[in-house]
Amino acid sequence: MKKCLLAVVAGVGLIAGGALLSNTKAAAVKAQPTGPVFDADGKLKLPTGYRRWVFLGAPLTPNGLNNGKAGFPEYHHVYVEEKNLDVYLKTGSFPEGTVIVKELTRVLDPTFPDGSRSEPSGRGYFNGVYNGMDVTVKDSKRFAKTNGWGFFNFGHHPEPYAEASTEASASECAGCHAAYVAKTDMTWVQFYPMLRGK
Amino acid sequence: MKKCLLAVVAGVGLIAGGALLSNTKAAAVKAQPTGPVFDADGKLKLPTGYRRWVFLGAPLTPNGLNNGKAGFPEYHHVYVEEKNLDVYLKTGSFPEGTVIVKELTRVLDPTFPDGSRSEPSGRGYFNGVYNGMDVTVKDSKRFAKTNGWGFFNFGHHPEPYAEASTEASASECAGCHAAYVAKTDMTWVQFYPMLRGK
Repeated sequence: MKKCLLAVVAGVGLIAGGALLSNTKAAAVKAQPTGPVFDADGKLKLPTGYRRWVFLGAPLTPNGLNNGKAGFPEYHHVYVEEKNLDVYLKTGSFPEGTVIVKELTRVLDPTFPDGSRSEPSGRGYFNGVYNGMDVTVKDSKRFAKTNGWGFFNFGHHPEPYAEASTEASASECAGCHAAYVAKTDMTWVQFYPMLRGK
Repeated sequence: MKKCLLAVVAGVGLIAGGALLSNTKAAAVKAQPTGPVFDADGKLKLPTGYRRWVFLGAPLTPNGLNNGKAGFPEYHHVYVEEKNLDVYLKTGSFPEGTVIVKELTRVLDPTFPDGSRSEPSGRGYFNGVYNGMDVTVKDSKRFAKTNGWGFFNFGHHPEPYAEASTEASASECAGCHAAYVAKTDMTWVQFYPMLRGK
């Protein structure tokens, strides 16, 4: 009888273990950082899940203040995975494999020439539709020629975005980052309260 | 022998179950949503960890476009916990206990009267220092008089913010929400791509 009971308890233990494993795996899949994924042609695949990463800041370059054609139209929502942010906050540089996503949104239905509109909270800017994405990836070997970071453009237009992106030329992206922010890990940390800590 | 083997397997199963339970608990502690915390006087304590919650959007009401004195100066970074966002996306309303944080930042060193400045990415607005916080809490019983939501102001100024906040009067906050967004769970969902889904 004792042995039977043990067998039953054992069975429950195994089942419970299995259930927990299953839950743990499910949770891990949901929250698991993906890192950069390259296809067979070396193109970067469109990141997923980034809207639930840690938000760093929201520069805004409205078309209305840029002769109708901002280089990055118009809000820039910038995200990074929590584990990579934590390394940055501890060391001052991002670890290998860091992906930084800048997703654009238009401004919401402008009524003033500068792109702003009036709402109960005041005159200003409000997020319109999603409008494209730029991504940087840190890989010191793969992107040695551009200070260890690769730059990718998935289109500056409403969804759907490109499914994969070829590395942008240095003149398109990395050149400007190298000219202005080479000393801060090729990243415009001065614009992000989360990275400045204030 | 078979029974012995079973007992050993059972033991491993139990140990594995225990280890997994322990890991699951540890993970839960790290990521555990806190929900609203009220002190003995019924004041809402300053939320913590919210900068790593899910970001919803960034309305911007610059002082430069609001006679030098925006009601909410100036960027509004809005965050909600992932589990509450998921319920909203499934049901169209936030669950009891939802906390929505709106943290303000100033704009970065304006050089134009409208509060904007020029950077390599274009003319526009960039996040300056953190500048205060407003919080809403859903609790249909506690805040029955204001459509189930309580409104709290932790100051509109640089850190440190108030450690706790008394519920704001209806005329200060809830009145405007009730007038404009009573039908969308007292929340300005029209400004947040994450809630609109586009």
